Amino acid sequence: DRRSLTPAREAEFRAALARIAAAAWARLTAGAPALDVVESAVRDLEDFPLFNAGRGAVLNADGVVEMDASIMDGRTRRGGAVAAVRTAMHPVSLARAVMERTEHVLLVGEGAERLAGTIGAERAPQPYFITAERAEQQRLAARQGKVTLDHDPLFNVPDPKDKRGTVGAVARDANGHLAAATSTGGMTNKHPGRVGDTPIVGAGTWAEDTTCAVSATGHGEYFLLSSLAHDVHARMAYGGAALDAACAGALGRVGELGGTGGLIAIDRDGAIAMPYNSEGMYRARVGEDGVVRVAIYSD
Amino acid sequence: DRRSLTPAREAEFRAALARIAAAAWARLTAGAPALDVVESAVRDLEDFPLFNAGRGAVLNADGVVEMDASIMDGRTRRGGAVAAVRTAMHPVSLARAVMERTEHVLLVGEGAERLAGTIGAERAPQPYFITAERAEQQRLAARQGKVTLDHDPLFNVPDPKDKRGTVGAVARDANGHLAAATSTGGMTNKHPGRVGDTPIVGAGTWAEDTTCAVSATGHGEYFLLSSLAHDVHARMAYGGAALDAACAGALGRVGELGGTGGLIAIDRDGAIAMPYNSEGMYRARVGEDGVVRVAIYSD
Repeated sequence: DRRSLTPAREAEFRAALARIAAAAWARLTAGAPALDVVESAVRDLEDFPLFNAGRGAVLNADGVVEMDASIMDGRTRRGGAVAAVRTAMHPVSLARAVMERTEHVLLVGEGAERLAGTIGAERAPQPYFITAERAEQQRLAARQGKVTLDHDPLFNVPDPKDKRGTVGAVARDANGHLAAATSTGGMTNKHPGRVGDTPIVGAGTWAEDTTCAVSATGHGEYFLLSSLAHDVHARMAYGGAALDAACAGALGRVGELGGTGGLIAIDRDGAIAMPYNSEGMYRARVGEDGVVRVAIYSD
Repeated sequence: DRRSLTPAREAEFRAALARIAAAAWARLTAGAPALDVVESAVRDLEDFPLFNAGRGAVLNADGVVEMDASIMDGRTRRGGAVAAVRTAMHPVSLARAVMERTEHVLLVGEGAERLAGTIGAERAPQPYFITAERAEQQRLAARQGKVTLDHDPLFNVPDPKDKRGTVGAVARDANGHLAAATSTGGMTNKHPGRVGDTPIVGAGTWAEDTTCAVSATGHGEYFLLSSLAHDVHARMAYGGAALDAACAGALGRVGELGGTGGLIAIDRDGAIAMPYNSEGMYRARVGEDGVVRVAIYSD
């Protein structure tokens, strides 16, 4: 919402995006694999407290931070993911550990926490993750939810203004390999244990060297019900669509269900698409000229 | 494995499949919506202790049953799912409750248990789910896993013979609406919190009236990494493939990663496909002639 974003806050967002994109570009030009670059970019985004991932993630209906993340390697078509984790400082790195150090793809809740302990992942207690702003948002949402829905205690009413803030990165490296990673705290005031599209390979994240890498953000339920990230791949692989058209088509499916949000995507030739059907989407890109371009709205 | 299936055990499986398919057909001919029919067929399969879902589900590395399920309505493209639940007697019905009674699509672990409590779902303590045979399988797998992998305690070694047994149903009703549902206990000796393709709309389950309904079974990690069920839909929607070819192509993607298993699918015209790349797949079908056809191997 453009009106609620102060110039000072906007400058903070833009500076963080520019810094993180420049660091990712430096790694790419130094020859790092796309998989390493998307992981480290998402770690940086998880550390930045204004985005809804890692530190600064939103609170669920219990006032607890539960985080989700996934990563996929377009070279091997392997992926890893975690959901509903409460202590991992970098959920994206725990997702990568699931991919590389277990036989599994997705671990949730206590089981994912146990892996974090086994491998010695960086962990922190809840206060590390919770910012004053997020705690206030959850209190407000819970109050509004109760007022709106006291006839049915089953329904949470996540604040529609706070469905956003998921972070993600896609990259194509010097060897033409693609990768994607996504991380989130989900929706303010969500039901405990709620999982959206972010930790689902095929919904929030996809990477395959022959087509594209995709990371999504938005109202996760609708992205999950649309297999959004795989849908972009499928439109290219089976329908012969170009990246732009594939992204627009896939996002259109989300819109049909009533969902808003956006995605970032890169194809095997390095073309970039970043469409959204929300008012804005915080984003940055670096092309072969090495120039970092940051944007929030359509301008 | 044909050699380990005794004639008496085979007869038990065949009788259960025939009984459950006949009951589903009776509901369909009485005018029940596809969504109700797939739910009730999967409930029946969950109750049958020889399949790996509900009662008789396999045990994880802690010796605990953790179950996953999903359901999707092809008429509305809505879906619901639960993962890592320990007390729901019918995970497929809890998945439907997520779809119909919350704003969410997927609830995991304690959060899903809490919903079960809130809505008064049928629940049971662990001993209800655990059969002597499953407990013995887990002890064996744990022992073999320890022997094989004492150099790395991270890796569980699920018994490759026990990756099977997921149950599912697809249906087309008199109004041409499609639905699909899937339910499982996962893999014997899996890491606690491990989630495969079964509770993921787009991987283990898909339904969309304009194309097809799909339910998958097999080594879930590879089905999840292939967005198997959505891939069948996408090959029809974007590539113009017929159901048979779409299923074969999608299963081929799983095979490329090294995964085995199969799927059941029905398209908008009532065509049925049930391909698998494993040695066999317990299955039943009823076409417009009302005859129930049960099969395990290719004969």
